[in-house]
Amino acid sequence: MARFRIDIEYDGGPYFGWQRQATHHSVQAALETAIAAFSGEEVTLFGAGRTDTGVHALAQVAHFNLSREWTARTVQNAINAHLAMAEETVAVIEAAQVPDDFDARFSAKARHYLYRIHNRRPPLTVDRAHAWHVAAPLDAEAMHEAAQRLVGTHDFTTFRAAQCQAKSPIKTLEKLDVTRNGEFVEIRASARSFLHNQVRSFAGTLKRVGEGGWSADDVTRALEARDRKACGPVAPPHGLYLTRVDY
Amino acid sequence: MARFRIDIEYDGGPYFGWQRQATHHSVQAALETAIAAFSGEEVTLFGAGRTDTGVHALAQVAHFNLSREWTARTVQNAINAHLAMAEETVAVIEAAQVPDDFDARFSAKARHYLYRIHNRRPPLTVDRAHAWHVAAPLDAEAMHEAAQRLVGTHDFTTFRAAQCQAKSPIKTLEKLDVTRNGEFVEIRASARSFLHNQVRSFAGTLKRVGEGGWSADDVTRALEARDRKACGPVAPPHGLYLTRVDY
Repeated sequence: MARFRIDIEYDGGPYFGWQRQATHHSVQAALETAIAAFSGEEVTLFGAGRTDTGVHALAQVAHFNLSREWTARTVQNAINAHLAMAEETVAVIEAAQVPDDFDARFSAKARHYLYRIHNRRPPLTVDRAHAWHVAAPLDAEAMHEAAQRLVGTHDFTTFRAAQCQAKSPIKTLEKLDVTRNGEFVEIRASARSFLHNQVRSFAGTLKRVGEGGWSADDVTRALEARDRKACGPVAPPHGLYLTRVDY
Repeated sequence: MARFRIDIEYDGGPYFGWQRQATHHSVQAALETAIAAFSGEEVTLFGAGRTDTGVHALAQVAHFNLSREWTARTVQNAINAHLAMAEETVAVIEAAQVPDDFDARFSAKARHYLYRIHNRRPPLTVDRAHAWHVAAPLDAEAMHEAAQRLVGTHDFTTFRAAQCQAKSPIKTLEKLDVTRNGEFVEIRASARSFLHNQVRSFAGTLKRVGEGGWSADDVTRALEARDRKACGPVAPPHGLYLTRVDY
């Protein structure tokens, strides 16, 4: 048996998220189908982050086992060839054989997300599927300042989807940086793990701050409320990217 | 009468190019329809660059006349509102009232294009509609060196589409720079005006150089052949952007 790690990039637009489901197409299913097509083996893929419907990834990480020996290069090229034939918007950007105790999900030490807001009055054209369009001018410095209220170990119930399956709402947010890059406002979040919809809940809440409707103190109050209803609107999925997983 | 200049961004994917046609949807028609919808006036739009089917623009420029007075801000917002309602991937990023002798096409002093190659072995995902995927490693420095053979005043018959309507194949190419930016190879071309398919013909030819199949001398020979058949394959439209027009 050989265990492989694959680093995966995808445009989440066409998929009902990472996780395989009975009725809808997922990134996981697209990859498992491609792996079966070249290897003849039915595998289960274990991913580091279960990205939601419409969320993109620049470097999702997953592992799977194959009973036959293949070079990592062959695995990568064969999966990509089958993905391309099936017109999937998924690609394996790296592949490596790894020790049997490597677990893409449980060995992960940190996950990094980017949320992209395209902040300008005219509607989006080229970027419309890859950033959230916010027409009102955003104060990125105020957003960054307010974001620091969320960094650290907290009960993040306010920023957690109703359907979140995590045992505890307590997480440690390592970083939540907001920077302006021309017309873009970029939010970068890092933690060992995140709750369901946590980054998009942060983005929606920080947008309120950027527009001037909320202060940093309002963010603290929302956090301390430990109540989903205290959260700003959840930002749409197509601005979110899983950018890196550390091991 | 008032003349307006509009700067326009578009994703060229859904359009049969800039120019209005009887049977296919164009960027020009999308804009003329939006202008008619808010102003009640049937206008003709004059654009700086007649981009081809599938080619994008970050700052196309066009002018048109309205008999009634409007502020430039109202013109911009009203066009954008109607474009958004029609789900066009076109946006007016700036609008200004201009003197009656301003002509978007004939007053233009320089046009600037960017051709984006995403140069990596795995297939594209997020970028698939916005860059040309070239899997073989490209030597961007060799491409840049060869590109300098094309700069200057030349008969560009080799790099001109059969259906090109320009009176003369002689043009002055001011700049043709090739740079690597991570996985991307970016070709930047500037001239007062270009022949039909000229930048895409350059991109296809320089790709041959980047792969090692052609030398800079081969590019000189192709130029001097003044023969369409001496050109490399024309690069696909979805990597090309009209980025700026100078007046």
